[in-house]
Amino acid sequence: MAVTRWVDGLRSAGVAAGIKPSGALDVGLLVAERPLTWAGAFTRNPAAAECVNWNRAALGRRARALVVNSGNANACTGSAGRNTVEATAAATAGLIGCRVDEVLVCSTGPIGVPLDARLIETALPSAACSLGAEVEDFSRSLLTTDTFPKVSTSSASGASVIGVAKGAAMIAPNMATMLAFLGTDADVSSDDLRAAVDWAVDRSFNRLCVDGCESTNDSVLVLATGNGPKLGPQELRDGLLEVCSDLALKMARDAEGATKLVRVRIEGARSETHAVELGRAVARSDLWRAAAHGADPNWGRVLAAVGAVDRGLVVGTTSVAIDDELLFAKGEPCGLLAVAAAAMSGDEFTVTVTLDQGDAVAEVLTADLSEEYVTLNAEVTT
Amino acid sequence: MAVTRWVDGLRSAGVAAGIKPSGALDVGLLVAERPLTWAGAFTRNPAAAECVNWNRAALGRRARALVVNSGNANACTGSAGRNTVEATAAATAGLIGCRVDEVLVCSTGPIGVPLDARLIETALPSAACSLGAEVEDFSRSLLTTDTFPKVSTSSASGASVIGVAKGAAMIAPNMATMLAFLGTDADVSSDDLRAAVDWAVDRSFNRLCVDGCESTNDSVLVLATGNGPKLGPQELRDGLLEVCSDLALKMARDAEGATKLVRVRIEGARSETHAVELGRAVARSDLWRAAAHGADPNWGRVLAAVGAVDRGLVVGTTSVAIDDELLFAKGEPCGLLAVAAAAMSGDEFTVTVTLDQGDAVAEVLTADLSEEYVTLNAEVTT
Repeated sequence: MAVTRWVDGLRSAGVAAGIKPSGALDVGLLVAERPLTWAGAFTRNPAAAECVNWNRAALGRRARALVVNSGNANACTGSAGRNTVEATAAATAGLIGCRVDEVLVCSTGPIGVPLDARLIETALPSAACSLGAEVEDFSRSLLTTDTFPKVSTSSASGASVIGVAKGAAMIAPNMATMLAFLGTDADVSSDDLRAAVDWAVDRSFNRLCVDGCESTNDSVLVLATGNGPKLGPQELRDGLLEVCSDLALKMARDAEGATKLVRVRIEGARSETHAVELGRAVARSDLWRAAAHGADPNWGRVLAAVGAVDRGLVVGTTSVAIDDELLFAKGEPCGLLAVAAAAMSGDEFTVTVTLDQGDAVAEVLTADLSEEYVTLNAEVTT
Repeated sequence: MAVTRWVDGLRSAGVAAGIKPSGALDVGLLVAERPLTWAGAFTRNPAAAECVNWNRAALGRRARALVVNSGNANACTGSAGRNTVEATAAATAGLIGCRVDEVLVCSTGPIGVPLDARLIETALPSAACSLGAEVEDFSRSLLTTDTFPKVSTSSASGASVIGVAKGAAMIAPNMATMLAFLGTDADVSSDDLRAAVDWAVDRSFNRLCVDGCESTNDSVLVLATGNGPKLGPQELRDGLLEVCSDLALKMARDAEGATKLVRVRIEGARSETHAVELGRAVARSDLWRAAAHGADPNWGRVLAAVGAVDRGLVVGTTSVAIDDELLFAKGEPCGLLAVAAAAMSGDEFTVTVTLDQGDAVAEVLTADLSEEYVTLNAEVTT
């Protein structure tokens, strides 16, 4: 992994606190040199983890630090879970010298398992001592079943954006199940930042749908130091979208058990919202994703998935193609299945459904469903 | 398999027409001694197979015969598919001496593959010669990846109901992906029969949700000979429900790759409709179904699945139990995971989610998600 650094004014560290039995890095600390503007997007699941509630309550205030742990979601853990979040924030605030309510807290891992706050408290001093500009250890400390850290950067009108993320399983829109932390040196208002985060998340992480399962801890947090150039609202959105889209792509490539990236493209839809809805329907079809795994151009499963959501679908004016090979058009099968199968045998392909309803287009990312996904998720984790 | 017979007035046969490469039975014929009252429920997918459109057009008329083939769904096959349905109905009408529009036609198998009508036409004479009262060959002729034929019977106020079904993959509500054919000797009106079919299907097949994928050929057809006792509307409903529920249970047990039956029970819901909706959300969670496969009592995945659909869920007044072991209550984990894991290690268990919204209850059936499901559905079928 190339050396990647945070924007000026942010430093991070990643340490092993013993939450993961493997002894791998499992606590990350991100610190700003002064309280700064931030915005976030969170899971809409009412079974949200306590840390999500904590961060939501902090929206609108400035932030100095972020603590994240992997190996335990601290979700559905009741009052003990709330105490752990508060203790973690308090310990961090004491170490770096800020207010408790300037500390953001995130967790990822199995749901419903008590998380011992002392593990994090004990590890935090060494994290604080090893803070640096490089993102690598921090990015590794987020990982659960991810096989590689996910880091992306962009520059927008002279401002930098850098983001790190973890994905893997429980990947569904609103949000894709994941954590992502972005930093930018852009000088932006709190309102512009909030609107830009929602806009970019909707067009990136919310167009990723792997197993259709929604999680309790999904969070995207964006911190803006203001040390760099002033950005207009659209420049900021574009900069965030570039990083979020690339992180979403990396998450799809590294989905649990995935061997290939599948782009589901809907064209000719009556609206972008409808196109996204249909794309998600195909993306979450177990049957289609299993066919993708076997490089089987079973386009009927794509049509069935679209028809399950769009009851007004007119099959006679709908077409299905895999990469450039048209397999169904004008109500009839066509094309060469062998050509489509060859396209599907690589590590990435696109299935395109073209409707005759309008001119809206959307692309949703997914991955194939493999035996390994089942094996990974059938393991006893609790 | 015990010898099971149709009600008086119905006879069937099953023959091998060469549609399945294995040479197994793949064409079934069901014949009534005279035109009789029938009703049906069909997939709502607009990519419905031509045979579904054919049968829908026949609703309200009387029927004399039903031809079904497995090994090819004849769906999304365009004008050639329409011609095959018409040719099949015409050949059957000629053989048994009835009108073409008194013949119902069903198909099941891969989508989008041309089906040669001559294979069926050639096989029909031997089917007509071997018509008998026993259901066995007919029930076997429906099967695709099913591992056993599914037959159920009930008696309601002196009338008999008998049904045969095939299930396996693409199992989702509206309809569960499947074919089911029921015969009864009850003397009922066409209107009562139609209402009873919808009522019973809604409470049986539509409460089965295995992979969440909807198919193009799902059909339940019920034929009433009228040779038996007169039934009131509720007696008829109860008789059909008993058979449909048992067939749905057998379909869940025989879902592709399934090793265990999982009952998802929602209690304390504000309405039965809402309870069914939440039950389906849990039933179609890949993560939960994979945990079921591994006998992992990962109840957090159940809560996350419910919360993904019920945005007003109050976690603090929701509980989750596996069989009798309460694992989450009043916002806190509780109970013994080892006890729950032991319950999940058998071939059947119940996960119960209890809400505090009302007193409605519903149960949805599903099965575990295994590596074998993926293997079966990753195979190139076209």
